Amino acid sequence: MEKVSVRATQENRKTIALGIGDDAALLHHRKNQQTILTCDWFLEGTHFLRDKHPADSVGWKCLARAMSDIAAMGGRPTCFLLSLALPEELTGTWLSLFLGGLKRASHRFGCPLVGGDTTKRKEVLINVTIVGEIQEGKALQRSGANAGDIIFVSGKLGEAEEGLRLVQSSKNKIAVKDVRLRKHLYPEPRLALGQWLVQSGLASAAMDLSDGLSTDLPRLCRASAVGAIVDLARLPMDLSASKKRAVSFALHGGDDYELLFTVPKHKTKRLPPKFKGLTLTAIGEITRSKRIFVRAFGGALEVLRPGGWDPFRS
Amino acid sequence: MEKVSVRATQENRKTIALGIGDDAALLHHRKNQQTILTCDWFLEGTHFLRDKHPADSVGWKCLARAMSDIAAMGGRPTCFLLSLALPEELTGTWLSLFLGGLKRASHRFGCPLVGGDTTKRKEVLINVTIVGEIQEGKALQRSGANAGDIIFVSGKLGEAEEGLRLVQSSKNKIAVKDVRLRKHLYPEPRLALGQWLVQSGLASAAMDLSDGLSTDLPRLCRASAVGAIVDLARLPMDLSASKKRAVSFALHGGDDYELLFTVPKHKTKRLPPKFKGLTLTAIGEITRSKRIFVRAFGGALEVLRPGGWDPFRS
Repeated sequence: MEKVSVRATQENRKTIALGIGDDAALLHHRKNQQTILTCDWFLEGTHFLRDKHPADSVGWKCLARAMSDIAAMGGRPTCFLLSLALPEELTGTWLSLFLGGLKRASHRFGCPLVGGDTTKRKEVLINVTIVGEIQEGKALQRSGANAGDIIFVSGKLGEAEEGLRLVQSSKNKIAVKDVRLRKHLYPEPRLALGQWLVQSGLASAAMDLSDGLSTDLPRLCRASAVGAIVDLARLPMDLSASKKRAVSFALHGGDDYELLFTVPKHKTKRLPPKFKGLTLTAIGEITRSKRIFVRAFGGALEVLRPGGWDPFRS
Repeated sequence: MEKVSVRATQENRKTIALGIGDDAALLHHRKNQQTILTCDWFLEGTHFLRDKHPADSVGWKCLARAMSDIAAMGGRPTCFLLSLALPEELTGTWLSLFLGGLKRASHRFGCPLVGGDTTKRKEVLINVTIVGEIQEGKALQRSGANAGDIIFVSGKLGEAEEGLRLVQSSKNKIAVKDVRLRKHLYPEPRLALGQWLVQSGLASAAMDLSDGLSTDLPRLCRASAVGAIVDLARLPMDLSASKKRAVSFALHGGDDYELLFTVPKHKTKRLPPKFKGLTLTAIGEITRSKRIFVRAFGGALEVLRPGGWDPFRS
């Protein structure tokens, strides 16, 4: 990961023709590269709580979660724009801590700030746009999955949801060093994995898990006009507490920012069990039927109902 | 203007490799072109009032004002991203009208939507990112003005402020057809003028007037390490009512989205008094001193104090 980031930074220095300070930023192009574009809200009260989430984590996470879309395409980040609205009383310590977390993320991902917009507002509002690049025609898309392909996820599912519950149940500002909160506060977009999936040519489709497997897998299936069966017994999750809770978090928990990708069956042997320390787990199979099922622990098939985060679902 | 837009649209169709629906959008590059990047907030309560501003105008203006930064660089728009947060009760009529205005602006500027992010929120929050392009090395910047250059503005100054005051003093939803409101509700980014300034090679520096001349001119001067003298008597403004009010609006009124640009003295003869019906007015001169003055109607020089819109100025 570090190597990828550092290389990106050096390349980016040549890419940015004009950064912050003019009406707009200017970027050079590299030959045979396409531009990737994505943007994400990060809003007080909706995505984080000012009185509970450390400002440093807000800074890290607003960039990391948008970055996850670049990772999902298999791209390299080039630069980002930050739109920030905040109350005047936060322009001191809170803003410094926020910018500290943002700066660490920017450095980690090799993705410098090139512009944005700021204004005064009662609540903290953040919008991040990231520009990335990828070799012409090589981007991972949601639409390439075929019946028979094996479905994989990176890392563990449900850990971020576990962290969110801890935050919700705590009365005060939370202890940043609690390892159970790491993934909720400081998610790691899977940039290196996405880039490797592009280079290796193994993935037929990919996306990132931001709203929960039960919401995101149907999106991938819809884009590919296929269905899926997911094996509950194979979900990579923390079973140390209640199994029911673990399955629910793994299926419906948001904010994991792991990659969900499909690999044609004959290519799965070339996929290692771990990529740079990150577990890759086969959790099911793509089907022709366009319906999405889970195979319960007993073996019975049940329809998978979306339970992840969708702001307009009542 | 129309010709410019239509050409841009046809070119853009080839530029967009992947639009809405995946994790991110993908753009092809054209040879010898740089990418322009800009983003802008458009927030209920800060930039518009839900109970007074027509949703159609909100849709038009959120794109038009971000577009003005592309115009200021002399660029052509390629595509845009829309981040939208809104209350569930506005997802019917309000949203349709909003999208109607946005769509007309998108068509007018030849700039299609390629992605974004939506969420639920008590207030309407909008963030627009626009990607544009311009021939390598040709972008108009704020930093190129030199002592002796003549300062020009397009159109009239203060009209949008006049419209804002009308809205603020009205008790109900406003009458959209009132011509005095046109520039406040439906600003026209000066894309064609910006592109022509690039082609003609006349401008040494340029920016758009979004926060008022008294706030924006100092920004251009700072970037160019120069000063300026502005002639009040030459400001293009509506003197039909009070002169004091007209001058105040022309100097300090925001939201005009006219272009402010400088032209070396020996090139000013090549600048027509009008460009496609839009008046171009010499309003003063760039100086070596780094201070910014206005020449009052009587001829006396006074220091120009910023009075335009700056959310963090008390």
